[in-house]
Amino acid sequence: MTITITAFERSPDGGKGLARDTRVRWALEEVSQPYAVRLVSFRAMKEPAHLALHPFGQIPTYEEGDLALFETGSIVLHIAERYAGLLPHDANARARAITWMFAALSTVEPPILELGSAKLLESDKPWNEERLPLVEDRVRGRLRPLSDRLGDAHWLDGAFGAGDLMMVSVLLRLKSSGILDEFPNLAAYLARGEARPAYKRAFDAQLAVNTGKSRAG
Amino acid sequence: MTITITAFERSPDGGKGLARDTRVRWALEEVSQPYAVRLVSFRAMKEPAHLALHPFGQIPTYEEGDLALFETGSIVLHIAERYAGLLPHDANARARAITWMFAALSTVEPPILELGSAKLLESDKPWNEERLPLVEDRVRGRLRPLSDRLGDAHWLDGAFGAGDLMMVSVLLRLKSSGILDEFPNLAAYLARGEARPAYKRAFDAQLAVNTGKSRAG
Repeated sequence: MTITITAFERSPDGGKGLARDTRVRWALEEVSQPYAVRLVSFRAMKEPAHLALHPFGQIPTYEEGDLALFETGSIVLHIAERYAGLLPHDANARARAITWMFAALSTVEPPILELGSAKLLESDKPWNEERLPLVEDRVRGRLRPLSDRLGDAHWLDGAFGAGDLMMVSVLLRLKSSGILDEFPNLAAYLARGEARPAYKRAFDAQLAVNTGKSRAG
Repeated sequence: MTITITAFERSPDGGKGLARDTRVRWALEEVSQPYAVRLVSFRAMKEPAHLALHPFGQIPTYEEGDLALFETGSIVLHIAERYAGLLPHDANARARAITWMFAALSTVEPPILELGSAKLLESDKPWNEERLPLVEDRVRGRLRPLSDRLGDAHWLDGAFGAGDLMMVSVLLRLKSSGILDEFPNLAAYLARGEARPAYKRAFDAQLAVNTGKSRAG
């Protein structure tokens, strides 16, 4: 059964890999599943055909036979449950790996998204310069305990898995901010994630889309 | 095997049910599982014993035999997978229900948390009055498509399930803001959630903790 995902026709980041289809591509590469990609324009994302797949008019989506999913976390979890390679067999270890997926998305990422909003959407506001350090401190408030827990370990809970895939993906958003340099073990963790062959294939695939589009445009 | 969760010794909201243990209590009530509660003070939450359970020093946590979990989303998913009542049997419908859990936590809740930060942490800042409408608009940007998708349905995808439990819990944070009144079907959806006997039992249980503490203190 063919797996089809959606991705930006032209990613807002120009191919830095921060669009969420990269997370799904990475998961599919880790479990060695081929997939097709349907590119969607910003206009088409808000039209009925795409909204039927994704109520919030975003990417990625996931189609496989008569199953249609949205939400990166849910898609990655589905892939991890369906194909071997991203979740341990032991039930308790599996529940802990899923815990780290949720921790990445609902504890660590929200202040990072807020920092992104401050930089992207409020850069012209008179308060931005004074406010940014407050938002950065909220990010540090999540990174510090994460760094403490990771310690010298390579991954969050034993072997690399879906929880690490999601946490590395979330931390990637901070790469250009310099904040990760304050937590050397997290910077090294990020680098370990980026060095995985499956990540590199996912990154290259999304980059090819964006480079191709750039040339065409 | 006894299930033990943790909750605030004294909730910052004084018992309005917005602390995240309410979500876990609600899930346990829906699947008719008894549970014990260990109350944790703000100081104890940052001490090694609790940090071993919850790296970010928060509540709730979940212990059951040799399994220890943190993260509300992961705990509710674990309960929904282990006990009948919160996830459909059909595999595709089950994946869609989990999708709504992730949508609640990683698409709808982040701007709501940002609104909470603006109101709680930045209320004394000179920019707050001018900035709040921007943040409220980000919340509306999530509520509008959610309202469109829900339409006249009672729940997000067929029968009530884990996705609704999480979405209602997230929307509860907006109750005092007035924003939900702009989306009558979401306000009615919230009211349907609050009317569930399992929710009422969960709400009353957390209220009893906070009322008891108020009396004692």
